[in-house]
Amino acid sequence: MFRFTITHKDKNGAARIGEIQTGHGTFSTPAFMPVGTQASVKAMGPDDLARCGAGIILGNTYHLFLRPGHDLVRQMGGLHRFMNWGGPILTDSGGYQVFSMRELTKVSEEGVAFRSHLDGSKLFLSPEKSMEIQEALGADIIMAFDEPTPYPASHAETEKSMQLTTRWARRCKVSHGSPSQALFGIVQGGMFADLRKRNANEIVETGFPGYALGGLSVGEPMELMAEMIDATVPHLPEDKPRYLMGVGFPEDIIRSVLQGVDMFDCVLPTRNARNGTLFTSSGRVLIKNAVYKDDPNPLDPECACYTCSNFSRAYLRHLFTAGEILSYRLNTIHNLHYYMNLMKEIREAIQDDRLDDYYRKWRVKTGGDKIR
Amino acid sequence: MFRFTITHKDKNGAARIGEIQTGHGTFSTPAFMPVGTQASVKAMGPDDLARCGAGIILGNTYHLFLRPGHDLVRQMGGLHRFMNWGGPILTDSGGYQVFSMRELTKVSEEGVAFRSHLDGSKLFLSPEKSMEIQEALGADIIMAFDEPTPYPASHAETEKSMQLTTRWARRCKVSHGSPSQALFGIVQGGMFADLRKRNANEIVETGFPGYALGGLSVGEPMELMAEMIDATVPHLPEDKPRYLMGVGFPEDIIRSVLQGVDMFDCVLPTRNARNGTLFTSSGRVLIKNAVYKDDPNPLDPECACYTCSNFSRAYLRHLFTAGEILSYRLNTIHNLHYYMNLMKEIREAIQDDRLDDYYRKWRVKTGGDKIR
Repeated sequence: MFRFTITHKDKNGAARIGEIQTGHGTFSTPAFMPVGTQASVKAMGPDDLARCGAGIILGNTYHLFLRPGHDLVRQMGGLHRFMNWGGPILTDSGGYQVFSMRELTKVSEEGVAFRSHLDGSKLFLSPEKSMEIQEALGADIIMAFDEPTPYPASHAETEKSMQLTTRWARRCKVSHGSPSQALFGIVQGGMFADLRKRNANEIVETGFPGYALGGLSVGEPMELMAEMIDATVPHLPEDKPRYLMGVGFPEDIIRSVLQGVDMFDCVLPTRNARNGTLFTSSGRVLIKNAVYKDDPNPLDPECACYTCSNFSRAYLRHLFTAGEILSYRLNTIHNLHYYMNLMKEIREAIQDDRLDDYYRKWRVKTGGDKIR
Repeated sequence: MFRFTITHKDKNGAARIGEIQTGHGTFSTPAFMPVGTQASVKAMGPDDLARCGAGIILGNTYHLFLRPGHDLVRQMGGLHRFMNWGGPILTDSGGYQVFSMRELTKVSEEGVAFRSHLDGSKLFLSPEKSMEIQEALGADIIMAFDEPTPYPASHAETEKSMQLTTRWARRCKVSHGSPSQALFGIVQGGMFADLRKRNANEIVETGFPGYALGGLSVGEPMELMAEMIDATVPHLPEDKPRYLMGVGFPEDIIRSVLQGVDMFDCVLPTRNARNGTLFTSSGRVLIKNAVYKDDPNPLDPECACYTCSNFSRAYLRHLFTAGEILSYRLNTIHNLHYYMNLMKEIREAIQDDRLDDYYRKWRVKTGGDKIR
């Protein structure tokens, strides 16, 4: 069911374009996955998502495990049917969310005990449990249950955590029993190049149809993230997709594609939209600013999205200021369209072997991602 | 520009169907107008509104006067263009909202001094000011500035207030200077049949292309409202549209159409949607109820709206429980579709001279509007 095909490699670098075939359709890479935490990409209907050109979306195992529960989702025909999204879905393993509530968790070899952020009830996640939940949810791509290393962490701490991730990856592979779902491995190793390389080798040796780079974009400088990507990617097989988890800003995405990454996810475009921070072809727009009060122009004159085709900056500012629900939707439609269009332009640039050039021009035009 | 044409009268009663032509298109009556308080029908884009079959929407002068301001809306090309709604719009006069903050207002012959609910600033509305604001907003139908009588009120109080409404109606007519906008008069008179009749005669004598029944649905029993409608409608000209302001529940609407009313507006379908109270062909559904937790059926199997065509009750309950923004939109799409479909069925029943019969069957099927 799952197949990754590289259709072109940029002659001037590591970037490549390709297609990933799943049981729910095919999407092009490099791809960005909008995040649908609770079986909904916030403020968006599946109609909006399709209109924005989303090829695959992401669901959060932790949140769906807690509410409405994976058994209910399975009973309702799986996540695709439950949320009425017919395209490909990837679910994360739940690990990242659990570990982000570090004070509430207790890690053992077996797994992680934690308390629900909703009702305080005691819960447990393990490699086997994560596989069980993700199989019930029924996503096309599922992720191994790992222990993301906190940042900063010492070499010794990172190594210990990484070794646990490796053992858990093996348990995930053993317990994974659904042939219609592709299980991706996750490479950890913190901010240490030697550990990244070692873990990449261990995870690749275990053998998965795709590999993720985990534990990045956790507060480290852009340069350090780039270094870690360079320390990992050469040790991953050329013919398998590479997924940089939780990234990120448009600039991070372009740079990482130049380093050979194929897949991304991040709450940034959707969360920023709800905060009124909008990505445009000439840089970031904070829509609440008074300068847009009587601006009759579209948010981004170069954008073809529903929002830019139909509404003025003045109206978008009014909706945001007045706290109208429509503000969330229109802003999110725009930001996701921006990201989807960015990925399309990236793919076109790779096709023409000019992604380096595209990146330079993009920086000049937008001013780069100065505000981080 | 404005023209009302009655196309059929129910042989068995006062109900009639017709068409109202405006500079922004024609809509059928009896009509229900979704409320777009702040230049947005809450949670709905104009695409959603069109899909629900909305023929005309309502904007609130008070809210738009305060934010973003009528001058800005005019500068942006008027309310239609500002919110990208190409169909007919009606604006209220601002009176109802101002008077609903009674402690903050001071009424004189000249008008009403009040404080903004947003920033406490001192503001003033008068018949002339309301006309100025409504002309700036540019709606197709605008309303006279009146003093809605509180409920309950004595005969003497009601009479005094009614007389002010009459004088203000005349000032509105004098100051109204925009031929592309139809100015409707409003009949007050509280809960007294003699005053309703007197005020109807006074307002009709002043002369308007349409007449509203104001000061109803303010807490009085259903029967009393029906009595006041019967005390007013016979004194309104047959060939002008009759608009019952702020009404209401589906049952109120059907009953009032039977009494000869042509137009309605109410926040009920949109506000209830956001509270998770949904209107269906078999009665009210409170979507948060545990019984819907694992219900794979559409909200209303007889409904053809986007929500019912694509999602289960279990999913709608999940979205509502999880506080997802999409919940507001999907619920609102459904409730507005329900109302628009109700109006369509009412018009079809009148066409066949069987609205009485339709009402009886509707009550049996839905159980009537028991929860008020």
